[in-house]
Amino acid sequence: MAEEVKLFRTWSSPFALRVVWALKIKGIDYETIFEDLSNKSPSLLQYNPVYKKVPVLVHNGKPIAESLVILEYIDETWKQAPLLPEDPHERATARFWAKFGEDKVLSSIWSVFIKQGKEQEEAMVPALENLKFLEEELKGKKFFGGETIGFVDLALGWLGNLISLLEEIVGLKVVDGEKFPLLSAWMQDFADAPIIKDNWPPRDRMIVKFQALRDATIVAAAASK
Amino acid sequence: MAEEVKLFRTWSSPFALRVVWALKIKGIDYETIFEDLSNKSPSLLQYNPVYKKVPVLVHNGKPIAESLVILEYIDETWKQAPLLPEDPHERATARFWAKFGEDKVLSSIWSVFIKQGKEQEEAMVPALENLKFLEEELKGKKFFGGETIGFVDLALGWLGNLISLLEEIVGLKVVDGEKFPLLSAWMQDFADAPIIKDNWPPRDRMIVKFQALRDATIVAAAASK
Repeated sequence: MAEEVKLFRTWSSPFALRVVWALKIKGIDYETIFEDLSNKSPSLLQYNPVYKKVPVLVHNGKPIAESLVILEYIDETWKQAPLLPEDPHERATARFWAKFGEDKVLSSIWSVFIKQGKEQEEAMVPALENLKFLEEELKGKKFFGGETIGFVDLALGWLGNLISLLEEIVGLKVVDGEKFPLLSAWMQDFADAPIIKDNWPPRDRMIVKFQALRDATIVAAAASK
Repeated sequence: MAEEVKLFRTWSSPFALRVVWALKIKGIDYETIFEDLSNKSPSLLQYNPVYKKVPVLVHNGKPIAESLVILEYIDETWKQAPLLPEDPHERATARFWAKFGEDKVLSSIWSVFIKQGKEQEEAMVPALENLKFLEEELKGKKFFGGETIGFVDLALGWLGNLISLLEEIVGLKVVDGEKFPLLSAWMQDFADAPIIKDNWPPRDRMIVKFQALRDATIVAAAASK
């Protein structure tokens, strides 16, 4: 049967990027549908009625939503270039860190990004604590997945890239090379990997996008006080 | 090799219950270590340094934390009585609903529980919307897993039980049998399944516990206003 693989994404969604990278690593041909989130397509609403968000992967007519769920699906459907290790305990460890990135690292870094002054300083404390756990996890490894990019790298990868965007926008160093040598090296190695680099949106557009998002969040927070 | 399986839990943690049920369904012998969260054991802190929480499963000396990650581990390690279906798309669907329960249903129900008056009425709107999705998902099925209890049932199961506790404490019907006939039947069928019933903490103790938790949350919220 001819495979039909479609990916609903936006040009900038970091969550959708995880799926793009996974499909590229697996060497899967797919059709891209770029969504305008201010005017969502009927297909997107039909395929993801719960969240109405990208990414959605549609494989032979069947939709899957939620980026980490999609990564697991891709890994189970196309066995080449595995994203998760084989050993159950190593798989559990990978899922644990992917979830940690989602639940803790993301929100704590975002908090640093959208706060100012003393509040920003306070927000740095948990953010740095969370990054310290990742630094520990990288001991003896180039990637979280070992010698090659795996599940945790893809789950955290956009965050790695995002941190450097946010650092540029806010003018603040979060991942200091002296405090976080392994994480700094990982961010560089990940960003330099051809499959990642070739599928990352233009940095100047991302800066504009996230700068606007930050400004809007700060204005909204001030208005609600 | 003799297997060594230990579960760190508290008597009341609903997240730990997921793991208890999964181990019972699989027929795995294990040792239980009951933790006092006001005085955590050095072992718990060593095994789960990130969250310092229960449940933690330790299998042949190797720890796994986070209840849904533990369920996947259990299913991959002991193949009997599968919790997840075999088909990749069905597996993805199960993971999607388990995550939905975690991210959306839990917080929206909790919000109803700890609010009062008009705020509680407002909190009911998203809670009922989320439950409606679950109602739809149950069409044509006895359990989320089909004819037998599976991954999604365990992920949502404690929530099913919790809702009835909360209804009793607050004196409010959330899962109305007329609006949610399938979900009501599921809550009953799930609670009546021997493996679930035999491993559910005493209802009177749970009522006292959650009543105290609610009171403390309401006092804390009032103090921060």
